[in-house]
Amino acid sequence: MSGAAPRIGVLGAGQLGLMLAQAARDLDIGCRFYAETTDVPAASMGPVITGAMDDDERLARFADGLEVVTYEWENVPVPAARRIEEVTPVQPTVRALEASQDRLTEKAFFTGLGEQTARFAPVDSREALDDAIADLGFPAVLKTRRLGYDGKGQLVLLKPADLDSAWLALNGLPLIAEEWVPFDRELSIIAVRGRDGSIACYPLIENSHRAGILRLSQAPAANLTGQTQAAAERCATRVLTALDYVGVLAIELFDVGGNLLVNEMAPRVHNSGHLTIEAAVTGQFENHVRAIGGLPLGDTGLRGFAAMVNLIGDQPPTAELLAIPGARLHLYGKSPRPGRKVGHVTVCAATEEQARDSQRQLEAIVGRQANESR
Amino acid sequence: MSGAAPRIGVLGAGQLGLMLAQAARDLDIGCRFYAETTDVPAASMGPVITGAMDDDERLARFADGLEVVTYEWENVPVPAARRIEEVTPVQPTVRALEASQDRLTEKAFFTGLGEQTARFAPVDSREALDDAIADLGFPAVLKTRRLGYDGKGQLVLLKPADLDSAWLALNGLPLIAEEWVPFDRELSIIAVRGRDGSIACYPLIENSHRAGILRLSQAPAANLTGQTQAAAERCATRVLTALDYVGVLAIELFDVGGNLLVNEMAPRVHNSGHLTIEAAVTGQFENHVRAIGGLPLGDTGLRGFAAMVNLIGDQPPTAELLAIPGARLHLYGKSPRPGRKVGHVTVCAATEEQARDSQRQLEAIVGRQANESR
Repeated sequence: MSGAAPRIGVLGAGQLGLMLAQAARDLDIGCRFYAETTDVPAASMGPVITGAMDDDERLARFADGLEVVTYEWENVPVPAARRIEEVTPVQPTVRALEASQDRLTEKAFFTGLGEQTARFAPVDSREALDDAIADLGFPAVLKTRRLGYDGKGQLVLLKPADLDSAWLALNGLPLIAEEWVPFDRELSIIAVRGRDGSIACYPLIENSHRAGILRLSQAPAANLTGQTQAAAERCATRVLTALDYVGVLAIELFDVGGNLLVNEMAPRVHNSGHLTIEAAVTGQFENHVRAIGGLPLGDTGLRGFAAMVNLIGDQPPTAELLAIPGARLHLYGKSPRPGRKVGHVTVCAATEEQARDSQRQLEAIVGRQANESR
Repeated sequence: MSGAAPRIGVLGAGQLGLMLAQAARDLDIGCRFYAETTDVPAASMGPVITGAMDDDERLARFADGLEVVTYEWENVPVPAARRIEEVTPVQPTVRALEASQDRLTEKAFFTGLGEQTARFAPVDSREALDDAIADLGFPAVLKTRRLGYDGKGQLVLLKPADLDSAWLALNGLPLIAEEWVPFDRELSIIAVRGRDGSIACYPLIENSHRAGILRLSQAPAANLTGQTQAAAERCATRVLTALDYVGVLAIELFDVGGNLLVNEMAPRVHNSGHLTIEAAVTGQFENHVRAIGGLPLGDTGLRGFAAMVNLIGDQPPTAELLAIPGARLHLYGKSPRPGRKVGHVTVCAATEEQARDSQRQLEAIVGRQANESR
């Protein structure tokens, strides 16, 4: 009983892998992880096989005997996933990885499904950048097509003089230019699809970023209408179905005057969905485990109002965080480092007013900590 | 990061230890366990030191370097707890162990605090049994003073002829006779006291046993009045304060026409409190960790209506259980065996009607399974 024999494999072993394994533990489903080192948050929950993403032999050994392999990281190299597929099913599908790893492919995939996105153009030369901006106008954003996260690999273009410097910074990599969308807010829809094709969506979550990193999520999104929720669910359903997807998917959306534009997707559990652990009847981590395990999906309804704040760089004193009404703390066991997500706190309450009050207390503590660590 | 260095030690490593460690994990607090074998549910959450309860050297080694040692089992031998106290603080206090291990001491402790209990008398001879019954009348219950649990070591006395057979079965052990209480229902109050003396109580839980084993808990108890809740909280507060208690305590009560009689207490997290994991703002396991860790207590309020059903002997198919609306499954990783608690399911809902509906579905599945395993 030193843990159930692993049935689920996870590529990556950070906090998402940790929380997946915590949810799986309740169902007596053990997890095994694949990572470059054993010094990872998920190591407290199951064995870690160390290896590189191009080590075919290690990957096959990792996958051997598992029921299913999933990933906590959308930049898993497609050849690694394909290598594993020879041994063990990979969920979500490799197609989901392919569709989400390249911003150009992703945007084309969304528009192909009839979804609205910011206008965009591929940029593979200095001239192509000029042409793209001539079409999109200022402001615009120049992004690397691959491996961008938390705002990395993105430059905002405000005026003609910005083109040279942006090109200097990013050229050599495949790029995409996108029109700047004057959005009112950023939303995310977390959705899950089971092996049998059943789909469930969480209520829309409202997200605030700073310096490209998610700081705050609120659920449900303020003033959420049934119409907006239905539009987001339609979008998620189209994406999930087109990819024959199994597991949790997150789609980031721009809300522009009530109209939703699709920004990007992550084929995995998502930071903005962490609050579902306490705020929903069934959390995103358990629903991912249920989906890839061929089990019935759990109710995605919210149990009240909630907000989540990331602990970035360092953590305020535990006692201060736990003194906030309705606060639940999740520490990942990572050593502090600037810009690093070391944990999160979710506050839940029966009323929106109580939730906002706890959220303000939480933001005050976390904000003070951020200032002190400068 | 293969788990935080253990700060909390737990004597025992069953499902209560497992769920304590799961709650501690979220706070990045590691646990170490002391048990007779490593084949135990909690082994998936931290290192297990194996040893006997009278092995002073192993006990001291187990406790070395920990911040606090707690227990998941009220029959921890007092000398073992005292041995550990020489090295590391033990919470709840050893006095709580002493007060709860002997039914006679326990009843005397309750009545000394002014609490009402069933009438009782010590029985240390056949004559004393006659005298006790002359006083208490029929029906009565003859119980071993120590080491009874799940209905073991108890015999009901209905008529004079039962005295001989009961005496034959139990004599040689210290005994207690208790009047039979014609209770309307059994309730439990789960309470927690912090290091700073602060106290929080969960709403009363209503419990149903069969064959001496808890089958079903419902929260809040049906038709719970503020008066009944207040009476239970006064009782819990007196007990916690008298014992200078730190941690979660469970008190079992008989409800007799709205009047509460104290039956017994368990100086630990309790099976009837498992539903607080999902049904309360803060679960009993997290609150125990908070209390013994010197952290602020969490809100004990309920977030709706809930019921918990134990999985005893064997578990029904996971997929059937997870298909019940609002169901959350906890499997302990134990192999099936008649009478063994292998897991539990909690159903939560916003309304009492929804919760009862899910409860009925759950009981139908679990009841069918119980019949099939006969």
